[in-house]
Amino acid sequence: MGLMPALFASVDLGGTNIACAMAGADGPIAAERTVPTASQEGPAAVLERIAALVLELAAETGQAPEGLGMGVPGLVDRASGTVRFLPNFPGQWRGVPAGEALAARLGCPVRLLNDVRTATLGELVYGRGRDMADMVFFALGTGVGGGIVLDGKLRLGPLGAAGELGHQTVAPDGPLCGCGNRGCLETLASGPAIAAEGVRLLLSGQAPALQRLTAGRPGAVTPREMAAAAEAGDAAVREAILRAAGYLGIGVANVVTALHPQLVVLGGGVAAIGPLLLDEVRSTVRRRVRMFPAESVCIERSTLGEKAGIWGGIALAARNGIV
Amino acid sequence: MGLMPALFASVDLGGTNIACAMAGADGPIAAERTVPTASQEGPAAVLERIAALVLELAAETGQAPEGLGMGVPGLVDRASGTVRFLPNFPGQWRGVPAGEALAARLGCPVRLLNDVRTATLGELVYGRGRDMADMVFFALGTGVGGGIVLDGKLRLGPLGAAGELGHQTVAPDGPLCGCGNRGCLETLASGPAIAAEGVRLLLSGQAPALQRLTAGRPGAVTPREMAAAAEAGDAAVREAILRAAGYLGIGVANVVTALHPQLVVLGGGVAAIGPLLLDEVRSTVRRRVRMFPAESVCIERSTLGEKAGIWGGIALAARNGIV
Repeated sequence: MGLMPALFASVDLGGTNIACAMAGADGPIAAERTVPTASQEGPAAVLERIAALVLELAAETGQAPEGLGMGVPGLVDRASGTVRFLPNFPGQWRGVPAGEALAARLGCPVRLLNDVRTATLGELVYGRGRDMADMVFFALGTGVGGGIVLDGKLRLGPLGAAGELGHQTVAPDGPLCGCGNRGCLETLASGPAIAAEGVRLLLSGQAPALQRLTAGRPGAVTPREMAAAAEAGDAAVREAILRAAGYLGIGVANVVTALHPQLVVLGGGVAAIGPLLLDEVRSTVRRRVRMFPAESVCIERSTLGEKAGIWGGIALAARNGIV
Repeated sequence: MGLMPALFASVDLGGTNIACAMAGADGPIAAERTVPTASQEGPAAVLERIAALVLELAAETGQAPEGLGMGVPGLVDRASGTVRFLPNFPGQWRGVPAGEALAARLGCPVRLLNDVRTATLGELVYGRGRDMADMVFFALGTGVGGGIVLDGKLRLGPLGAAGELGHQTVAPDGPLCGCGNRGCLETLASGPAIAAEGVRLLLSGQAPALQRLTAGRPGAVTPREMAAAAEAGDAAVREAILRAAGYLGIGVANVVTALHPQLVVLGGGVAAIGPLLLDEVRSTVRRRVRMFPAESVCIERSTLGEKAGIWGGIALAARNGIV
């Protein structure tokens, strides 16, 4: 009994699903489960669902968690463990004392953090960023989020909102962003931005391979399908991917110029495009960063993929001083 | 005698002049002098001129300096005190052990740093950034440089080149920059970039007030004269200043979005344009930073002006752990 290593719990709260896992501070994952969020039921029901899920995994592993780290899709007040704002959740999530409620229910300390910053920690501690002091993470999904680690510490700023790298302006007169600004990286390199261009090419008859791969259904167009279509010979689709990668390269180059980190990690569904995207980002950064050898910065794909958030929750719970 | 506070020496090595001062760790300046750099004479002669200048001020104050901090317009290896590269100096400045040579001559420790990063320290310790943990500095002159302070520490990166904020891309297809990239902030908001547009307006007859103020001489057009012309009614000159300020606002907004610092300081000759520039930068940042209240970031003009570099050298010499 005394030889059993401590386990920590992690929750990745998403708009669709709640993912939960338990693991030791150095892994491996001892148990995991995913349930629907059903966010329309409101904060109390969602928090109760989270607590029940953690308790279920605790029963399964036979160990109570030493702590819980939870990533949420919005802003939190870390000191008080309060959820400040979840932009895509219905209901009253402003000022919800989620940390306190879960700690009382689970009997262990609970730490909350923005979900992309949590994924950044996962990538730093268990993924591509292992043994790195500096790392910049871009989460390229429905939105574009980010996280910045300097000297081994996540940069959060006074409101936990530092690192919102998807909302850098990369095209001064670019498309309107959901945030209210124009030309944010997110408007040009997010999954929806890339897919929208794929749909245009599909509907205008410029993408025969994409037509075959998606059976002509716009709803089936994703960055991943577009990568396959480019591979299969759709020049216009290839061009669309390279254009998005060029804007992403500007966003990466600007952060690299400002901070000169050792490592930039690209995660999220858009990174699944693979070498076509990655090579163009790298060459853009080499072309645009001229004040020092851009080769001194590694630009790599996430190794944890969609598990970065879950691993980040374990890091958040198990490691002190990382945020 | 024993009651005399320690004095530190500071050198700001420029392409035209060498400025030197001695001061206590908390000021005031006890002595200062400026001599021509005469960089065409090469590293040995320039270093000897610096040493002689410091010894002169030491004689004048009656105290040997406890240390010397020197800002140089290029890249240095801080650990060895070696000058790596001075882009605008003739002669063999690659790999010059300037720190060692000066330390031997002066009998005190010598610290070297890039000149804009040195000015950043000056502004942090003695200027607008006093008591601030986070500060981003833009030096808007012939070039556009920068410096980033996070948690009280200057961010330098492995080669001392972090903080080159003038080389962020703010217009993907913008003008060619001296660094080799296109659309760097420097190509759109440096002194020469702003003055060039002023010259165009002057020569095309669109700037009657600027015409009067400069007696029609293109060589007399500066950002400061342009501010006066805008004030005196030149709408096109006003527009040119606002356009440059808009690009500067994008550069500021991007750093603010990534790092959420408490304070952004604008220094250098371009900042002398005053409220017309500053108000447009602030409104651009408010319009483009939407992920948190942009009002939480102060954007202010340097209080030290051209003395920021000299004060930075004192900070560099007198404060441990700041870099």
